[in-house]
Amino acid sequence: MTDSSNLLSKVASYDAKAEQFHCDFSNHLMLGHLGNELLNVADRHSMERGYGMPALIKMNRTWVLSRLAIEMNEMPVAYDRFTISTWIEDAKRFYTSRNFKVSGKKGMTLGYGRSIWAMIDVETRKPVDISSVKDGLIGEYVDKDTLCPIKPASRVIINGPMHLARQIKPCYGDIDINGHVNSIKYLEHIIDLFPIELFSEYSLKRIDMAYVAESHYGDILNIYVDDSEYNVYGSTLNTVDCRTEENLSANKNADNISRIYNIRITKCSENEKNEVEVVRCSVKFVKV
Amino acid sequence: MTDSSNLLSKVASYDAKAEQFHCDFSNHLMLGHLGNELLNVADRHSMERGYGMPALIKMNRTWVLSRLAIEMNEMPVAYDRFTISTWIEDAKRFYTSRNFKVSGKKGMTLGYGRSIWAMIDVETRKPVDISSVKDGLIGEYVDKDTLCPIKPASRVIINGPMHLARQIKPCYGDIDINGHVNSIKYLEHIIDLFPIELFSEYSLKRIDMAYVAESHYGDILNIYVDDSEYNVYGSTLNTVDCRTEENLSANKNADNISRIYNIRITKCSENEKNEVEVVRCSVKFVKV
Repeated sequence: MTDSSNLLSKVASYDAKAEQFHCDFSNHLMLGHLGNELLNVADRHSMERGYGMPALIKMNRTWVLSRLAIEMNEMPVAYDRFTISTWIEDAKRFYTSRNFKVSGKKGMTLGYGRSIWAMIDVETRKPVDISSVKDGLIGEYVDKDTLCPIKPASRVIINGPMHLARQIKPCYGDIDINGHVNSIKYLEHIIDLFPIELFSEYSLKRIDMAYVAESHYGDILNIYVDDSEYNVYGSTLNTVDCRTEENLSANKNADNISRIYNIRITKCSENEKNEVEVVRCSVKFVKV
Repeated sequence: MTDSSNLLSKVASYDAKAEQFHCDFSNHLMLGHLGNELLNVADRHSMERGYGMPALIKMNRTWVLSRLAIEMNEMPVAYDRFTISTWIEDAKRFYTSRNFKVSGKKGMTLGYGRSIWAMIDVETRKPVDISSVKDGLIGEYVDKDTLCPIKPASRVIINGPMHLARQIKPCYGDIDINGHVNSIKYLEHIIDLFPIELFSEYSLKRIDMAYVAESHYGDILNIYVDDSEYNVYGSTLNTVDCRTEENLSANKNADNISRIYNIRITKCSENEKNEVEVVRCSVKFVKV
């Protein structure tokens, strides 16, 4: 075990800013950029404590994001400065859970995040025992006391029929250093399913991302939407873009305080039509 | 005129970092993220000097990016800290030119940028006289002495046949606070046209973006590629994705030190099939 006197604090805070060019049409920071900031902060926090990606890569290990949940009361607007605090809530043999708190002016809580990470062997892509790295150093940083008052990151249970909303071929910009489609890119592709007008009437309250398998350049991604709650997406839309006038008017006519959409992303290829599940997601909007 | 003694320096430098999650499969910062940083820095520099977006909006004015050129010797890699310096090279009646220098470790020059901006009336969307704002304050900041040794941002002249490489419907994430497709999003969509393998053999040396007209949510964007130099994109590809095996092998067989691709983006709509030019672009790759 490491000498505890050398340890940094368990919770660390990092400053961020809602850059104008990272904000949407309503001047609010886009969730994808916030998600990126959370992952950046996770990366810094773990690096500073000795179990970050650069240290792991030397041991043929890497972190893989397994689940991510973000729940926001309010999104920063352009030019707002905000703070992200992060800490390890738990470290089991094969996964760790890391939480986030997003604070705005005068320390006002804007929202929270939760994430679950596995450690894998870079070559076999199989999970490895986290406690075997640096003699279980990460255990020294577990903080079970700091509060994260949002529900755990869900593995997203999907029932009922799904409608193919969009097919995507991952491009250069989708692929990250690990050679697979970047976690946040899935999130951005999912948010891009919804008509822009929805974001005027509703705010994106919570997103749960469950990363089931990796996908790569050359795969075809199929994005399915299950709107069992409100059935906004009709079966006639099963091969086309969601953002149609019919959907839009269905959204407008629905007088609901919140709407939840479940989404499944599968992968296939030109030659292999069998679909393998890659991501499950739940998105919750609430009336503004 | 403002009392010169209150003026800040003409050239200002801002620190940035290549966040891991902003890097591509080869661990280099993606050009879209660098472009975003340049625009952020332009925004900060002009805000600090009294003619930024927030000040202009109160006068029903806004800056619109007309041209952007980025030329890099080297891209930062993940975790690299770098510095962006920016200054106004010229301020004419209807446009200003702003330059950028990107520096890495020990002040090493990584590359440069050039941009041209018009000021428009928010409602009429027509150009307005820049010298009418704050009694020509911007003129106090013109710096013609600082060197920017790359060619001016080109308006990109396109000759020869163009091939439709991709059609895109702008989504939520493409639209910025001005209500139009974000300048950097066009750049990212263009870079995403190229097969990922190209980025292993070549590095993206320079991009010239000429913004001709605005496009909006609901438009359909048509992206055309003119590869007159090497004719990599054959006429048989006129309705499909560029990233095919044939293109790839054509790229691989070409023994060229550099390749230049010209791109034109037009907009149309479901009801209006006449196409209006939105963006012209030239992308130069050089052999690694």
